[in-house]
Amino acid sequence: MRRRKRLELPERREQLLQLAVQAFSSKSYDEVSVDDLAQSAGVSKGLLYHYFPSKRELYVATVRTAAEQLIERVLPDPTLSLRDQIARGLDGYLSFVEQNAAAYTSLIQSGIGHDDEVLSIIDNTRVRFVGVMLERGGQGMLNPAQQTLLRGWVGMVEAASLDWIKRRSMTREELTKFMLKSLLYTLSLGIPKPAK
Amino acid sequence: MRRRKRLELPERREQLLQLAVQAFSSKSYDEVSVDDLAQSAGVSKGLLYHYFPSKRELYVATVRTAAEQLIERVLPDPTLSLRDQIARGLDGYLSFVEQNAAAYTSLIQSGIGHDDEVLSIIDNTRVRFVGVMLERGGQGMLNPAQQTLLRGWVGMVEAASLDWIKRRSMTREELTKFMLKSLLYTLSLGIPKPAK
Repeated sequence: MRRRKRLELPERREQLLQLAVQAFSSKSYDEVSVDDLAQSAGVSKGLLYHYFPSKRELYVATVRTAAEQLIERVLPDPTLSLRDQIARGLDGYLSFVEQNAAAYTSLIQSGIGHDDEVLSIIDNTRVRFVGVMLERGGQGMLNPAQQTLLRGWVGMVEAASLDWIKRRSMTREELTKFMLKSLLYTLSLGIPKPAK
Repeated sequence: MRRRKRLELPERREQLLQLAVQAFSSKSYDEVSVDDLAQSAGVSKGLLYHYFPSKRELYVATVRTAAEQLIERVLPDPTLSLRDQIARGLDGYLSFVEQNAAAYTSLIQSGIGHDDEVLSIIDNTRVRFVGVMLERGGQGMLNPAQQTLLRGWVGMVEAASLDWIKRRSMTREELTKFMLKSLLYTLSLGIPKPAK
């Protein structure tokens, strides 16, 4: 008889979630099997569904978890110079992209279709990412034009990241440097120039 | 008795396609009704399905048509200076975005889900768009790093366009100018600097 380890509720949930994050990070949504996940965790499919009532809900929970992990990577070290904080944050972003290539690609690139909950997690993460970058950049309030330009900059970060993990066209350091320069340039364009 | 105008095959197809382009430009995929389309064209639903066997195929055909229209807008006037050609092309892009806001938004923003045919039309259009811009920019072959940066620039164009049509945060002229500057800056970063 196989001995099944009894876990308390939060730990069990966390265990299943971490397994799901791994699965969805390396496979597409359709390829992930709930049966396999339950088996890896040593639980019944029924128990898994007790914590996450559907594959979709499990997926949404992993997206939320991945988003938290991404933001954690981006949070910079306040003892560094502002420029280094942004550079470090971007490097954290790209290392996350490297380690979660499949999930990042499927999320950003037409993502998971029409799921409003997933889209809103992605959008919310973008807003927080920009918030962290800007706070470190020492920017105060942004005017609407600057907000549009910054949203554009995030689009650049995502599109360049997707292309980069596919083709490895430069080092992570090079891409980090480009993204940093591009952010500073974008902000400089959106700021009204002082009269000469 | 209602007199039904008899059209030859290509004209009828074109008529249905134009009606569909209008419908999908102003409504989401789910909101477009094939019944309404057939009625506007004065044809039976059966005849419409003769030309386009499914709503999905009709949609793919409209995406293809819209992509052609977009590229046409971007094609510049070779009598202008290179910089003006790019600016004119970008202005054409943004005027297309303005006039097809709903369709553009649904296509770019997680689009129509997992449809590989639609994704490949979108990607192909991006490649052609970049091709036109670069030809006018007088760029020859690009190295892999430059290609990634340019792909990033297209992501910026799309993300900024989406935000701009939603919030109208600046004039089309201002956004065109920003996108032009950003392209020139991006290209300058990707080009190895000559030794001083």
